Amino acid sequence: MKIGGKSYRTIWLNDDGWSVEIIDQTKLPHRFETITLRTLADAARAISTMQVRGAPLIGATAAYGVALALREDASDEALDRAYETLAATRPTAINLRWALEEMRHAVRNQPREARIAASYARAAAICDEDVETNRRIGENGVGLIKAHADKKGGAPVNILTHCNAGWLACVDWGTALAPIYRAHDEGIAVHVWVDETRPRNQGAFLTAYELGAHGVPHTLVADNTGGHLMQKKMVDLCIVGTDRTTANGDVANKIGTYLKALAARDNGVQFFVALPHSTIDWSLADGSTIPIEERDPTEVTHMTGRLPSGEIRTVLIGPENSPAANYGFDVTPARLVTGFITERGVTPATREGLALLYPERAKSAA
Amino acid sequence: MKIGGKSYRTIWLNDDGWSVEIIDQTKLPHRFETITLRTLADAARAISTMQVRGAPLIGATAAYGVALALREDASDEALDRAYETLAATRPTAINLRWALEEMRHAVRNQPREARIAASYARAAAICDEDVETNRRIGENGVGLIKAHADKKGGAPVNILTHCNAGWLACVDWGTALAPIYRAHDEGIAVHVWVDETRPRNQGAFLTAYELGAHGVPHTLVADNTGGHLMQKKMVDLCIVGTDRTTANGDVANKIGTYLKALAARDNGVQFFVALPHSTIDWSLADGSTIPIEERDPTEVTHMTGRLPSGEIRTVLIGPENSPAANYGFDVTPARLVTGFITERGVTPATREGLALLYPERAKSAA
Repeated sequence: MKIGGKSYRTIWLNDDGWSVEIIDQTKLPHRFETITLRTLADAARAISTMQVRGAPLIGATAAYGVALALREDASDEALDRAYETLAATRPTAINLRWALEEMRHAVRNQPREARIAASYARAAAICDEDVETNRRIGENGVGLIKAHADKKGGAPVNILTHCNAGWLACVDWGTALAPIYRAHDEGIAVHVWVDETRPRNQGAFLTAYELGAHGVPHTLVADNTGGHLMQKKMVDLCIVGTDRTTANGDVANKIGTYLKALAARDNGVQFFVALPHSTIDWSLADGSTIPIEERDPTEVTHMTGRLPSGEIRTVLIGPENSPAANYGFDVTPARLVTGFITERGVTPATREGLALLYPERAKSAA
Repeated sequence: MKIGGKSYRTIWLNDDGWSVEIIDQTKLPHRFETITLRTLADAARAISTMQVRGAPLIGATAAYGVALALREDASDEALDRAYETLAATRPTAINLRWALEEMRHAVRNQPREARIAASYARAAAICDEDVETNRRIGENGVGLIKAHADKKGGAPVNILTHCNAGWLACVDWGTALAPIYRAHDEGIAVHVWVDETRPRNQGAFLTAYELGAHGVPHTLVADNTGGHLMQKKMVDLCIVGTDRTTANGDVANKIGTYLKALAARDNGVQFFVALPHSTIDWSLADGSTIPIEERDPTEVTHMTGRLPSGEIRTVLIGPENSPAANYGFDVTPARLVTGFITERGVTPATREGLALLYPERAKSAA
């Protein structure tokens, strides 16, 4: 999508043909800066420090991380090391392992001299496929928004989202935001309630930023606000992304998603989850065993922002000696999800709904 | 309760016999500073800028605000002006109007020359009554915690709270935290999950601060976290305060309370609301008509904290041009509340439950 009128992806190959450029998302919304990844360590650090984040973009970055590793050493041992290093960066996102498996598959039976080219080709394809997948999610989801617009006689459709499942979380388009961009671009009036998404503020820092850059009307709210908005009929539907969805339709997503799903259910508001096939973990029967990442407590006790001078500073926002805990995700049970918006269509959040769209995978998991 | 080993109330009369001292809660947890109130305007500003906050403390401050106003001008007109000025400071808290009515009643039929003494006496009594009321809330609520402690064989009872309904929200003891202080002081092992409570961070700034100062084990979490903690059986019960409770048991409290109540219900966790009688609005049949305060959006887009140098600074934490909305409260329907902890005992969150404890008021409201 666009920033300052210029089209970007979140990750791309540089003109040198081998180094990889990413947008440093830890600097947004205050500064637009890019970073060059030249080694496996660069890629792993970009993921673990959340310079890139969002399940699809983590997968794409990991793919290029394998390519960068093989460029230095194309041995089986180096491939295994790259896999393990990258897999350890973020435990919850399933796309990470999916992308690493894809990369392993692409190079495993190749002679060493062909592995570098094969890995770059597969990484580029993963990126292109992600763009096409998300374009289709937008296409498949826009009808859900249009139905509300028709019912409201053209008054803006109010959509609540949590965290950032926009183009900054993917290579382009986004998952949850793809139908919203599509609706906006088609001239359907939309307004997005953006949860700030503590403690990393991906809503305030990224979702509000990218919606604003593309010209989509939106309002930033504290994470506490969604329930009240739904009680007051100020939300027509919710659309969120997911980091891992299990075979029965349980949804791991940014911490706090479950609370919004409960409020949606209590107020008769539709709650959709947008996801590409790569986010489905067919190996898990339900969400109870998804590993939930615990991150550094200083993300809770400190906050980074911009001083009036323009300087970016980090301030302590709790008492000096209070301990803090930082769980990154929660699991929303399938029973609270109205439906999934995928690249193959919209389907109920059930084992049967997923099997209908992905018979080839559902079968192999059964 | 204690700070640095010294006992404090949140509001007290100075040695001069007329000016009023408060703890400036906008400076906590970084600095402990007090402010002297000398005029009606000082008192109104202290409430509207949240130097004092919390329903009971707002009432106590308003009471002294009337006394300060009458000290300058003891006429009926001045009394009316003080009432209107103070009533306009915060629209949701019912204690504010309750305290103002108490003050009007105390001075209305007095000759002008007796009004100053009468108003100071009533304000002091409101403060003392608040302390006694909250001491009793602690006494009445501690058994609920002890029941969990017994069931857990002495392992720490995990209690989740939202916002600050501690002694800093009252004159002393607190409402939601009173049973927790009581349990802790009686040697029952407790651990408190403290929601940070965006956008004003009363949990991080005040609840964590006062629990730490008193030595109560606690952990600070983002507001998004409570649902996950309850899913994982890491919360034994929730206790929150309220700014206004209607005759049927609906509870207006800090925005986000409703989301935690939904999560408690979904996970079979008890959800208690602690309140003094002065918080009950017998004139409202249910919570749908409680006015919900909208505050300055910059509370959402900016965050104040401490730099490593010790300097307190405010940083912008959203994109420069993104609008924000700031609803201060939400309403938790009575059906989600396990029970009320009041100065007269524990009762179901129903019209009948409240009438049982307050027959004299329930009757007059019927």
